[in-house]
Amino acid sequence: MPETRSLVEPHILEKCSLYPDYVEAKLGFRNHWYPTLFSHELAEGEFKTHEILGDRLLLSRVDGKVFAVRDRCAHRGVAFSHKPECYKKGTITCWYHGFTYKLASGELCDIITNPRSNLIGRSKIPTYSVEESKGIIFVFIGDIDPPSLADDVPPGFLDDNRAVRGVRQEVAANWRIGCENGFDSTHVFIHKDSVLVKGNDISLPLGFVPTSKDTFKIVDADSGPKGIYDLLAEHCEPVFEGKVEGETVLRGHMGSNNVAYDISIWLPGVLRVDPWPDPSLTQYEWYVPIDEERHYYIQTLGRVLQSPAEETAFAEEFENKWKPMALEGFNDDDIWAREAQQEFYKHDEAWYKEQLFEPDRNISKWRQLASRHHRGIQRYEDIL
Amino acid sequence: MPETRSLVEPHILEKCSLYPDYVEAKLGFRNHWYPTLFSHELAEGEFKTHEILGDRLLLSRVDGKVFAVRDRCAHRGVAFSHKPECYKKGTITCWYHGFTYKLASGELCDIITNPRSNLIGRSKIPTYSVEESKGIIFVFIGDIDPPSLADDVPPGFLDDNRAVRGVRQEVAANWRIGCENGFDSTHVFIHKDSVLVKGNDISLPLGFVPTSKDTFKIVDADSGPKGIYDLLAEHCEPVFEGKVEGETVLRGHMGSNNVAYDISIWLPGVLRVDPWPDPSLTQYEWYVPIDEERHYYIQTLGRVLQSPAEETAFAEEFENKWKPMALEGFNDDDIWAREAQQEFYKHDEAWYKEQLFEPDRNISKWRQLASRHHRGIQRYEDIL
Amino acid sequence: MPETRSLVEPHILEKCSLYPDYVEAKLGFRNHWYPTLFSHELAEGEFKTHEILGDRLLLSRVDGKVFAVRDRCAHRGVAFSHKPECYKKGTITCWYHGFTYKLASGELCDIITNPRSNLIGRSKIPTYSVEESKGIIFVFIGDIDPPSLADDVPPGFLDDNRAVRGVRQEVAANWRIGCENGFDSTHVFIHKDSVLVKGNDISLPLGFVPTSKDTFKIVDADSGPKGIYDLLAEHCEPVFEGKVEGETVLRGHMGSNNVAYDISIWLPGVLRVDPWPDPSLTQYEWYVPIDEERHYYIQTLGRVLQSPAEETAFAEEFENKWKPMALEGFNDDDIWAREAQQEFYKHDEAWYKEQLFEPDRNISKWRQLASRHHRGIQRYEDIL
Repeated sequence: MPETRSLVEPHILEKCSLYPDYVEAKLGFRNHWYPTLFSHELAEGEFKTHEILGDRLLLSRVDGKVFAVRDRCAHRGVAFSHKPECYKKGTITCWYHGFTYKLASGELCDIITNPRSNLIGRSKIPTYSVEESKGIIFVFIGDIDPPSLADDVPPGFLDDNRAVRGVRQEVAANWRIGCENGFDSTHVFIHKDSVLVKGNDISLPLGFVPTSKDTFKIVDADSGPKGIYDLLAEHCEPVFEGKVEGETVLRGHMGSNNVAYDISIWLPGVLRVDPWPDPSLTQYEWYVPIDEERHYYIQTLGRVLQSPAEETAFAEEFENKWKPMALEGFNDDDIWAREAQQEFYKHDEAWYKEQLFEPDRNISKWRQLASRHHRGIQRYEDIL
Repeated sequence: MPETRSLVEPHILEKCSLYPDYVEAKLGFRNHWYPTLFSHELAEGEFKTHEILGDRLLLSRVDGKVFAVRDRCAHRGVAFSHKPECYKKGTITCWYHGFTYKLASGELCDIITNPRSNLIGRSKIPTYSVEESKGIIFVFIGDIDPPSLADDVPPGFLDDNRAVRGVRQEVAANWRIGCENGFDSTHVFIHKDSVLVKGNDISLPLGFVPTSKDTFKIVDADSGPKGIYDLLAEHCEPVFEGKVEGETVLRGHMGSNNVAYDISIWLPGVLRVDPWPDPSLTQYEWYVPIDEERHYYIQTLGRVLQSPAEETAFAEEFENKWKPMALEGFNDDDIWAREAQQEFYKHDEAWYKEQLFEPDRNISKWRQLASRHHRGIQRYEDIL
Repeated sequence: MPETRSLVEPHILEKCSLYPDYVEAKLGFRNHWYPTLFSHELAEGEFKTHEILGDRLLLSRVDGKVFAVRDRCAHRGVAFSHKPECYKKGTITCWYHGFTYKLASGELCDIITNPRSNLIGRSKIPTYSVEESKGIIFVFIGDIDPPSLADDVPPGFLDDNRAVRGVRQEVAANWRIGCENGFDSTHVFIHKDSVLVKGNDISLPLGFVPTSKDTFKIVDADSGPKGIYDLLAEHCEPVFEGKVEGETVLRGHMGSNNVAYDISIWLPGVLRVDPWPDPSLTQYEWYVPIDEERHYYIQTLGRVLQSPAEETAFAEEFENKWKPMALEGFNDDDIWAREAQQEFYKHDEAWYKEQLFEPDRNISKWRQLASRHHRGIQRYEDIL
């Protein structure tokens, strides 16, 4: 029996030889930082379970600090979260046989039902590094020493004066479908009737004609995040007249607000759209694998703020305007589109049966970058 | 990797050596004509999706004529039917990136989001030949030049003066279970308590004792439809007394209406029962594969008419009498029986573990005829 | 093709070399007696279907005696129970084609639709030996001459003066999870807050520290039931103080009622807890495989009675007290725990990835005993 089983049949990976690792990474890339819950979702002393990359975490907050362990007792495999029992701060006790672990180290420190067991001090459950930043709990899924969080988020995201707010939705599509829907410049076509576009007088073409092959810029220096900028805005003609057989049948909205001209995607699967949905805002959105067929769509908006008053104003504006109108109203179309796409891409053959066109060059480059610079492929052996 | 994968394990096909192709044809036979929607279900300009033989069609009507293309954009695989967009008569535009195809040829004639793409004119989606006859939209599923529709329907069905009306139901059983339930003479046993039988004073025995081995007639001349007639009516003794251990426990209904004495089944899976349910009517019914576990049961009644007045009368009689009483009331028992049978036949082993008896000789002959004369086995490679 | 396919991948069985048969026996052990319905659930003349070990039985009662045949017609595989037709006492007629079998022998005695068929008298359906005892219908699943029922129940269960009453529940967990939850001494931890414990002032520690390796006694004489007694009560220190990092955080209930000190488990998966839940009662509970992922949890309480008056009192006490408070209130926690455990053990790898501790020695011994003394592994070949 091979120790490592491929998630995709070899003859399919061969046909996708430009980016085999990306095609195999159904469950996501290992050894990266991923956002999980928002900080406000985990109160002091609370325990929450969270599925990610096929794995299941138990998150808890102790004296303000968040800890993550695998949500599965080493003894008989049950999830702590079915009935979290905590008898001492910083520990979790399994409801079944009283196996008690330290949240910080994962170490089995006590077994209530057999306090003299030899297993005590000799067994442990996996722990996960956690960083909390910008109101988001990030977790490192992997087994190497975690690099800096800054290496796995878009440039600027962690800047001191940037406030961030967001929402999380579950989407019934593989995480890669999410990435590609977001980074795909010509998917603007699905937004042509969006209320947001007309309501905010946003300029939104129907598509783009690339005028050069230089429609992207790769960022893959040894240190720092790895990603790709979409340069279509500079190297294309926007399409405002939609034609079929020579006849104009549709028109894009030529508004006065020019936004979304700086789009980039970063490992392990996070998009930056700048500015969006307003010249004062930047959207950062993650597509975090839950399992092979679902991802968390974590959308955030960031704004550089100068004062506490601006922070209050941003909070109110976010709740009343941007959350319902942009993150939900506008991007709900994207969720719908991804779920429609999943029907095809759930078949591994789709990755070579698809028929890409010129503007998809950027998507292909993203797949290649991801295949080259990921830190590992998540496999079932990692989580079972 | 084999280009063609068997749908059934080889050791099972070996054990079914009289009709291996039939056993393998879970998804139906390829290169045949199949009924889909009734004509009245597809209005001018309308688009409808329809699953058949594991595939998914987009049907539409343009200037009265029906077109069928695969309901999947060549680009990223989404179904057009999720949100059909048509900007010019005779075309379908994909809602995702504006890929626009001609319905007649499947040719990619425009991409709204990138009107200068090299793919335009060089890509296409599969199209399917369509014939509309007797109020039914027939589609040819295959890749050869379609033979005449007349080759895939029972003799006489297309006769000029025959009017046809019908209904379509989805049945949770493989299509072959449908065929065999219909062609099976001794399944009359399940209808013994039917209101239709007594209400129309139909003669319906409980079963049949074959009095010869010549209980069938094969029709497989080079041209024309391929099928088998059940000659049990001529070569059997009908059973009107049901006995258990020598004692009569049940009686069949000896009525004055003698019907259903001419029963035949034809490739690719269509039964003719003549006359039925009345001496003036013929029932034609198809068992069209949807996928491995479901089929469309398309029941039609045909009557030879002499005048428009007779047509109106037939329409009224069909709606008020035959549809509720025969196609639904009576044949609902068959749907129920097929779904019960599927529990066993979903296991491929069932095809050799079953224990057939003498009257099933006709079913065995049908399986052999189908194995010999089908024009291809539908496989997943054909639809993915 | 191998005649016998392993239910578990060989590399997993190799890693479980102490009890490979137990790990493979997902569907249960063959050639054993199992309880099915309670006697009061099957009235004279009634037919009921019952799933067990992946198989499906038709149970019926004729002149007081219970018969069991496979609930599947030999002809086309449909379940008789979809519409049981019985035209003569002691027979079952298939609703589809009138195949009629004797319930006692399984012999095909008549075919109503073709009374002169050669199959008559030459075909049969499987029958199952039945014994009715203590108000329970026991069925022997297997193909050898059945041993005595007494060999497959805990000692004493069949004693003449013991009255038995019980309930049956369906649990979404493999049957082995049921066995191990029941025989697991330290699972008392999940019952620490049970109303039953305090309400009846039962002494219930939080766990047990084994003070010797002799925590079990194996019973595997050539004749009689094969099982294991848990001797923890004698060779352990009960834990009444639950500690985490040296601090007492929980206390077990030290009550005046000392119960459950004699616990044993027996092939093919039945537990005896004596006395329980009261000094006058013994609990016998079975974990009967339905399929790979479900079992029937059949709980019974037995009491030795001296008079009919005591029997009436027991019936009332059972319905009003023990059934709601013990078999449901208390043991519902066990059902919940098993279903939680199934999430892990549905992966075959769990059987070697689990991390057992000292008190689980008894569970390991049970697995070994079962692997050594079972009479066969139930396989899909046995039921298809």
